[in-house]
Amino acid sequence: MNAETAVTVIDDVDAYMTEVGQAARAAAATLRRATTRSKNEALAAMARQLDGARSEVKAANQRDLERGRANGLDDAMLDRLALTDARIDAMVDGLHQVAALPDPVGEVDGLRSLPSGIQLGQMRVPLGVIGIIYESRPNVTMEAASLCLKSGNACILRGGSEASESNAALAACITRALEETELAVSAVQVVATTDRAAVGRLIAMPEYVDVIIPRGGKSLIERISREARVPVIKHLDGICHVYIDASADPDMAQSIAINAKTHRYGVCNAMETLLVDAAIADSILPRLADAYRELGVEMRGCERCRVIVCDMLPATEEDWGTEYLAPVLAIRVVDGIDAAMAHIDRYSSRHTDAIVTSDYLLARRFVAEVDSASVMVNASTRFADGFEYGLGAEIGISTDRLHVRGPVGLEGLTTRKYVVFGEGQIRQ
Amino acid sequence: MNAETAVTVIDDVDAYMTEVGQAARAAAATLRRATTRSKNEALAAMARQLDGARSEVKAANQRDLERGRANGLDDAMLDRLALTDARIDAMVDGLHQVAALPDPVGEVDGLRSLPSGIQLGQMRVPLGVIGIIYESRPNVTMEAASLCLKSGNACILRGGSEASESNAALAACITRALEETELAVSAVQVVATTDRAAVGRLIAMPEYVDVIIPRGGKSLIERISREARVPVIKHLDGICHVYIDASADPDMAQSIAINAKTHRYGVCNAMETLLVDAAIADSILPRLADAYRELGVEMRGCERCRVIVCDMLPATEEDWGTEYLAPVLAIRVVDGIDAAMAHIDRYSSRHTDAIVTSDYLLARRFVAEVDSASVMVNASTRFADGFEYGLGAEIGISTDRLHVRGPVGLEGLTTRKYVVFGEGQIRQ
Repeated sequence: MNAETAVTVIDDVDAYMTEVGQAARAAAATLRRATTRSKNEALAAMARQLDGARSEVKAANQRDLERGRANGLDDAMLDRLALTDARIDAMVDGLHQVAALPDPVGEVDGLRSLPSGIQLGQMRVPLGVIGIIYESRPNVTMEAASLCLKSGNACILRGGSEASESNAALAACITRALEETELAVSAVQVVATTDRAAVGRLIAMPEYVDVIIPRGGKSLIERISREARVPVIKHLDGICHVYIDASADPDMAQSIAINAKTHRYGVCNAMETLLVDAAIADSILPRLADAYRELGVEMRGCERCRVIVCDMLPATEEDWGTEYLAPVLAIRVVDGIDAAMAHIDRYSSRHTDAIVTSDYLLARRFVAEVDSASVMVNASTRFADGFEYGLGAEIGISTDRLHVRGPVGLEGLTTRKYVVFGEGQIRQ
Repeated sequence: MNAETAVTVIDDVDAYMTEVGQAARAAAATLRRATTRSKNEALAAMARQLDGARSEVKAANQRDLERGRANGLDDAMLDRLALTDARIDAMVDGLHQVAALPDPVGEVDGLRSLPSGIQLGQMRVPLGVIGIIYESRPNVTMEAASLCLKSGNACILRGGSEASESNAALAACITRALEETELAVSAVQVVATTDRAAVGRLIAMPEYVDVIIPRGGKSLIERISREARVPVIKHLDGICHVYIDASADPDMAQSIAINAKTHRYGVCNAMETLLVDAAIADSILPRLADAYRELGVEMRGCERCRVIVCDMLPATEEDWGTEYLAPVLAIRVVDGIDAAMAHIDRYSSRHTDAIVTSDYLLARRFVAEVDSASVMVNASTRFADGFEYGLGAEIGISTDRLHVRGPVGLEGLTTRKYVVFGEGQIRQ
């Protein structure tokens, strides 16, 4: 059945997406009112259904993998695509974890009485309908569905065509789970066509979709941001910096600089450029270089670096603006915090930037003046993450400025309305 | 000089707007760091300059008014365009009021320690560069400039062509004021061309502009939302409802229903549709009708209304979706709160909706389930206003869902970045 869904040929994609949108809008109206208990029961049912459909899911995933190999997907892509038992376990656990998170919906902030006598507060409410467009990893289907559902939003999920069979199998689990509950089955819909026109329509129906969250490569996200007629919460690249000030403790500076670069290479919160205060470059660069060399990190330095560490490759202008996602590091010697912040202001993708210092005033200045989603003092950029920030889960990391910046958890999928309590007050 | 500015002919509008955008981006970087004192001093200087340039401003306004009359602007438009001494006084007072407001920038929420040992909080920071596009009222120039400046944002202001001389005169005051301060003069820029292409460019340069706030008629706002390549905080229409439940105190219901409709007609938070519970329609509709009749309000009722109050005009489907902004009211008899909320869900513009009731459970349901920017119990919809909500000032009322809903004050012009304080923590 899931296989069918995946290969269903839909001739009128616009009409199909319109139906999907209408169903999502209708579901959103009921989800808005859903109790925390009923949402958590739905998440538990999804976990049960997924756990019980392992063979079905793995078989579908096999078909995707075979097609992927036939189409010459590289090993990295095939790995992202694969649904092993361990990954299915992780999805099941993830569903229970989201069920265990506090429900942000209905929370009222800042309730206060005003001179007119009315009492005013702001209540958290769902955004409505969320469209999520993602690429090869089918796990995203469950992650996204669970976070949207817990936050009271209906969602329309559009996965990568290479994962179509796997996503259809996961969609079948979700549908069976929702059928067990009082929630609308269309609360979670997985787009059942791989036709690219479906994406074009999904991002251009503001009457049915309130926000689009693209998860994937830069080109996908840029295309969607360019063409969307709906607000987009985007996660672009992470060109993260660590600035080591002359006042830094050298051992702390080294452990942060090593962790930020080498803890994991392919992640957006890894450091891509290291900035070193000229006043300590001579003493700290050689030991850092030894450590990076040992770990197999290719160093690309500015001219001043290369005078100190001769075997560094020369960094070009392009390096300052590159997200390597690899064991490659750009290094630049700068004259103090002002030059460091000027470099960051010019080249940072405004994702995460850190300073290592023991100087109180410099720490305050860096925090106040660096304009990035996460600004850190004496900590590794690798902490910029929804789990590390205690959000419990993460649907992405926003590099946008409006609505939500940095890791996006359940709260980022809600908005606030004003609530007014009166006893007959009228405007004079 | 201001006259000149207003009539400056700019042949390459794209190049001009690009320069304006670059200057705004540069100013934003310094404004972000500006102290509350320096921002308040700039606001005080703006007030002084405006107060000292009354004759210049009024002369420029006279030229706009004459051109307006020649171009056949109607009286309402000419009235909005006119800058009397009273209105200049109000602008001067407004500048001092904004200076007196607390500065939201730098405020840190929810600072807490996490298991990893890092301390995490969220700091309020400016959005960056705000583009504001508005129509005839030149007062908006000062209001918008002051709110953007106080919230640490650079702004690009594009007023209506009919007010070009007035806006240029006000721009000259602002420029002279900024020249007295340490802030960048390009912190506030008024577009010096009435060429419509300038708007097209302003809303399509995300590299220089972070958000667009259109203030004006529905067609202007819809056009901008459609064409913008930058996030837009929009203020569309206010089709506001009051639902009188059977449990309502009749006198309270009447005073709220009268105030919500008749306190002011041309405002977005005025009630446009009154919903009356069938259980009390017989008793309350006649007395409400008498009151509206006396105040010259035209009533358009559903069939059930017209059985009770025979002289009502029949309401058509179109009435339920119309923002009259006039002494006209649509009235519908509904069967209890569910029918009322169904009507609101279908026809409300999600600006402001209210219930009058003495029933605790119904009040809770209405507040939880009605999806509008402001949801009220036993209060007039006219309270949905930045001043009444204690925001101190208002740049508009957002009918969007993301970032900010309802009245937008200084806080709505800011965003929050994560700040992390560590002592050398690294990710394990």
